[in-house]
Amino acid sequence: MTLGTTFAADLQRKIDMKTKPLGALGRIEELAAQIATLQGTLSPRMASCQVTIFAADHGIAAEGVSAFPQEVTRQMVLNFLGGGAAANVFAASVGADLRVVDAGVAGDPFGMPGLIERRIGAGTASFLTGPAMTADQCAAALQAGRALGADGDWDAVAFGEMGIANTATAAALGHKLTGIGLDVLVGRGTGLDDAGVAHKRAVLERAAARTGDLSPQAALAEYGGFEIAMMAGAMLGAAAARRVVIVDGFIATAAALAAVRMVPEARAAMVFAHRSQEQGHGALLDALDARALLDLGLRLGEGTGALLAWPLLKAAADMLNRMASFDEAGVDGPA
Amino acid sequence: MTLGTTFAADLQRKIDMKTKPLGALGRIEELAAQIATLQGTLSPRMASCQVTIFAADHGIAAEGVSAFPQEVTRQMVLNFLGGGAAANVFAASVGADLRVVDAGVAGDPFGMPGLIERRIGAGTASFLTGPAMTADQCAAALQAGRALGADGDWDAVAFGEMGIANTATAAALGHKLTGIGLDVLVGRGTGLDDAGVAHKRAVLERAAARTGDLSPQAALAEYGGFEIAMMAGAMLGAAAARRVVIVDGFIATAAALAAVRMVPEARAAMVFAHRSQEQGHGALLDALDARALLDLGLRLGEGTGALLAWPLLKAAADMLNRMASFDEAGVDGPA
Repeated sequence: MTLGTTFAADLQRKIDMKTKPLGALGRIEELAAQIATLQGTLSPRMASCQVTIFAADHGIAAEGVSAFPQEVTRQMVLNFLGGGAAANVFAASVGADLRVVDAGVAGDPFGMPGLIERRIGAGTASFLTGPAMTADQCAAALQAGRALGADGDWDAVAFGEMGIANTATAAALGHKLTGIGLDVLVGRGTGLDDAGVAHKRAVLERAAARTGDLSPQAALAEYGGFEIAMMAGAMLGAAAARRVVIVDGFIATAAALAAVRMVPEARAAMVFAHRSQEQGHGALLDALDARALLDLGLRLGEGTGALLAWPLLKAAADMLNRMASFDEAGVDGPA
Repeated sequence: MTLGTTFAADLQRKIDMKTKPLGALGRIEELAAQIATLQGTLSPRMASCQVTIFAADHGIAAEGVSAFPQEVTRQMVLNFLGGGAAANVFAASVGADLRVVDAGVAGDPFGMPGLIERRIGAGTASFLTGPAMTADQCAAALQAGRALGADGDWDAVAFGEMGIANTATAAALGHKLTGIGLDVLVGRGTGLDDAGVAHKRAVLERAAARTGDLSPQAALAEYGGFEIAMMAGAMLGAAAARRVVIVDGFIATAAALAAVRMVPEARAAMVFAHRSQEQGHGALLDALDARALLDLGLRLGEGTGALLAWPLLKAAADMLNRMASFDEAGVDGPA
């Protein structure tokens, strides 16, 4: 669907005729315009939101690039299923649904009710010495993600992740996709000290030197994670279904970058929720010409930033649908 | 009530034991700590929010310091009562209650159901040539505000305002309370052009030169507005009731500044919602040692920024009350 200039003009006029000074709702007006354009209507629906958390393990964790042990990925999946993680609490707080996907956690399948099993493997291989996954695994992760992203009829979908060492993965992937230096992209993750960050960067420099230029999908296979590839696929599936995609923090932004490099039109569906404390996030946002809505010092992932941004999207659509115009309210414009 | 170091330590421990890296929820953790400390409990309640919009007119409007005619104050009160303003839409969107107070709109009383009548007068006098209000009027506005702020049993209260020319009033008041220059504090308001801003500043320079140093309450009487004085009183009433006070934009921050200069302990109850596009807001926030939660380019007032911040407060308390600890969830800490 391509919307004409008439639609854009009608939309801007509808926003400008609301009872407020011109532009006085700032980014809420921008959000409203983006949502309306994506849905192709001056009266967009923004009533329901769902977050899907993709969990997977990373071979690169064996190189000591995270402050937490790998077992925490599995433990946190159980925490999500039990309702005790920050993402569960925030989802309930803002009225969003939550799903958890095993995209490839190390060890055996969970076999637990309530968990969506889409395991591509029992964690990726270490990308220090070879590809994190095969091309077939990457394609399978993208495909499973596309289906999950297009599933249901939520107006907005957010994607979160859990995977010990996945800031290392996201930094390597972001570096390969953009050429931005690892000195910019490598940060503290869950809490590395300066020596830990230096070690993480050295590991990633060696890993990155293994390959030359790569296509986006090849970069995803070489340096990605199962949860990151599946999340990228989910973003593409959701965008193709003209659903607003709320992009969370550093790792979700790396997935968004891979998605947009594969399918540039997907960018139009994306809203960037929160600028993470993780060092490299700003550079990845810049690469997507994106400005995050929130800046609250979060660095947790799980979709927590995306969930906190959902009320803003709802308010933006409500503004367009429910706020009175100067004419309707009998309010004078500027003198 | 003074809470001991044991309480502070217990609170920090409760936050740090949640299943997340230390500090990974950034300002949400700070908010949770502030709310818990204000309520004096490790399990604070943050389930209900209410916004009160105070409307009044300003004699200084006659000097041509606003882009909109004075009649708009009255028209917007009717818009609030009809449910069509941005504040109504955002309040419904985030699940907050809304009240509208006539603190002193020009013309006759409205005499309308649903409006809280606390009229101090039919608009202030122009503070260009004399005090905006008498000392008695100022005391009456503060008193009416205190009662409204302490009313009901909402966990959080937000205060909004409507009053054509009240960015001029807030700039003059902020200048007198802090000594910050009018070149910093005078901005475009609802949409002045450069010449309009220069004129507004010249008017305020002349008005400010009328008086020397003033006590906070005297500054409020000389340069305030009925809605600003009543809002300052409401903040004090709410803070005394240990209720979280969500401070909106530029004008609400000027009221908060007056309130804190009168009763410094009130600062502990205040959460600053949104950094306005209005030029002087950053300087007033600095004077209160405050950092706003949101920065969305809003410049509307009405409590709109405060309403958009309410879901963050709710999420912060939910985090403290509902998120699992490492022990409860069986999740390992850092390696």
